[in-house]
Amino acid sequence: MAAAPEQFEGFMINDSKKWSDFSKEKFTPKIFEDHDVDIENECCGVCGSDVHTITGGWGKLPTAPICVGHEIIGKVLRVGSKVTVCKPGDRVGVGAQVQSCMKCKNCKEHNENYCPHMVDTYGAPYNLDEGHSDKPMKDKSGNQIFSQGGYSSHSRVHEYFVFPIPENIPSIEAGPMMCAGLTVYSPLVRAGTGPGKRVAILGIGGLGHFALIWARALGAEVWALSHSPNKKEEALKLGAHHFVDTNEKDWAKPLAFNFDFILNAADMTNEFDLPTYFSTIACNGEFHNVGLPDKPLPELMAQNFASNGCKLTGSHLGNREEALAMLKLASEKNLHPMIETIDISEAGCKKAVEKVKVNDVRYRVTLTGFNKAFGTGSK
Amino acid sequence: MAAAPEQFEGFMINDSKKWSDFSKEKFTPKIFEDHDVDIENECCGVCGSDVHTITGGWGKLPTAPICVGHEIIGKVLRVGSKVTVCKPGDRVGVGAQVQSCMKCKNCKEHNENYCPHMVDTYGAPYNLDEGHSDKPMKDKSGNQIFSQGGYSSHSRVHEYFVFPIPENIPSIEAGPMMCAGLTVYSPLVRAGTGPGKRVAILGIGGLGHFALIWARALGAEVWALSHSPNKKEEALKLGAHHFVDTNEKDWAKPLAFNFDFILNAADMTNEFDLPTYFSTIACNGEFHNVGLPDKPLPELMAQNFASNGCKLTGSHLGNREEALAMLKLASEKNLHPMIETIDISEAGCKKAVEKVKVNDVRYRVTLTGFNKAFGTGSK
Repeated sequence: MAAAPEQFEGFMINDSKKWSDFSKEKFTPKIFEDHDVDIENECCGVCGSDVHTITGGWGKLPTAPICVGHEIIGKVLRVGSKVTVCKPGDRVGVGAQVQSCMKCKNCKEHNENYCPHMVDTYGAPYNLDEGHSDKPMKDKSGNQIFSQGGYSSHSRVHEYFVFPIPENIPSIEAGPMMCAGLTVYSPLVRAGTGPGKRVAILGIGGLGHFALIWARALGAEVWALSHSPNKKEEALKLGAHHFVDTNEKDWAKPLAFNFDFILNAADMTNEFDLPTYFSTIACNGEFHNVGLPDKPLPELMAQNFASNGCKLTGSHLGNREEALAMLKLASEKNLHPMIETIDISEAGCKKAVEKVKVNDVRYRVTLTGFNKAFGTGSK
Repeated sequence: MAAAPEQFEGFMINDSKKWSDFSKEKFTPKIFEDHDVDIENECCGVCGSDVHTITGGWGKLPTAPICVGHEIIGKVLRVGSKVTVCKPGDRVGVGAQVQSCMKCKNCKEHNENYCPHMVDTYGAPYNLDEGHSDKPMKDKSGNQIFSQGGYSSHSRVHEYFVFPIPENIPSIEAGPMMCAGLTVYSPLVRAGTGPGKRVAILGIGGLGHFALIWARALGAEVWALSHSPNKKEEALKLGAHHFVDTNEKDWAKPLAFNFDFILNAADMTNEFDLPTYFSTIACNGEFHNVGLPDKPLPELMAQNFASNGCKLTGSHLGNREEALAMLKLASEKNLHPMIETIDISEAGCKKAVEKVKVNDVRYRVTLTGFNKAFGTGSK
């Protein structure tokens, strides 16, 4: 099996004003350390975060050029001397996080996805000594090395953020599980989703369609809430027991105090009448945002929480245990998301992010054909 | 023992523009039903809600004239044929709720404090048949009867909202427990406050000072957060292990991810920098509003919840079990709030609500001297 090259190659963005003009360029990966895993990338899902980042919706480009993509599936080429979770030849996945300090309260409590020293999969600066040092990790020219994502030939990632993929999950489906899947799986299980619970999934897109699948598989009674009635049939197929068209007048009235948990995967929450949604939540139930819109939430009064003691919250990814449990659930219950594929290239990346930008995806795009595009394909 | 008179008497407000001009007037209580308890009032705490109501801060007067007050202690005079929780001569308390439907999902799940058919202690219309009918309960003149509060000679209340007071709790202290005490006790226990939990009480006023007492007695490690450093000594005496002056620059930094629960009892939340408070919350911890300011909460982004998965929530009173458990805790651990007393009269009510309006109370006012003011005093 070939080793990873010294430089990796990716489809990169140089300017958020030209956010869909990808160019294939080489970049220097982080220095290989004892817990690192080198991966030859096979495919990569396209996430709304990729688009928020390259368009500048979340602020200016953290580094340029930047290679986005954090739903990566590939084959292990090499492992560091301390790696125990995988071996060369294994098929593995990487999500939206590639490092944490492993020492803070959050890390020790299995909340490494909330570590204040975390390194995102792309656009984050690396420090020396697996991030335990304050000193920047630099390339040969003396520039600090930033993480780069999965629209690329290879990835180099700390083993704790590398997840073995069960054999019966196709790579193009496993990719989107790494971020979209985990981002909704974690809050669902932390809210106790299971038999006897009433769960609503609001916004049936990339994240929402995974949430329907997981919530149903976990045993809850599942509602899809959507302003797109043409998604009804697919929502029911994916896992919803009920479909509610939120365009209909008084849709919320028969659902007063109904839901133990509303998972809001919509990206337009700033336009929502939140008190109406809150009115459908059971006492002390939760309205949970996983979308991170560019705009603020609608104005709220403390009073809006007083008629049922509901909770407004959000989350960031999931932890390693949740990632592994999600993959086990998908494998054991033979669960399948709905995935479109586009071969990776400058034009392919452009097409993919433009489709995601206008929500023209049912329900997730995975970029494929990496071996051909990068001349890889280990034996 | 004398029976309750046909008409009760109270210190009432006729116009929210003259919100501290009380006049002593007679009013017609609800019709006596099988679960009702007639109480000769002994004293009544003065709550911020009384002031929000009579000043019009929460909207126009729900009925006029209105008698506010929902922290009532008194002696049982008479009980309906189905009453089991108390008997004539017992000392009992009544809080901010006097009826619920007892039939809905919330009531059945011991969340009667979130019953959509609840009747507040003052300013709420009564329907016939203990509220199970849609027909209004009317007085002899044909007007619908509204609930009236405890700045009055007597109360008539459904037994489920009547709480026996343990012998060793003085009436002037038990009164404020009925609303202020329960309003903070319920969210504290629902959040699992106890040994090993780190709890912050934000805003050390009537509600906050009870929260310090309960949180300490429940076994948590307790912080008082306040912008009034002159309250430090009292806060520590009441129950805080630590005092944090939130005027100090960077006060939040050493407390990053520290609190499992922040109970916000402040009334000026609209002026708070909420993301700074959120930064002090542990993963999946909670920021809980019990104050209901007249103004909206500060603007928030979904992102503000993503760095720790924190929850923003609120609550309304507590349920019967929580009220009884709170009284048991106060009795067994010999816990004492700090109470000022003012004898009830037109001038006394005026003085009390004006002090509450400008937060010039440490930490709660109880109106006393009811027998003298109303010529009551059962033998």
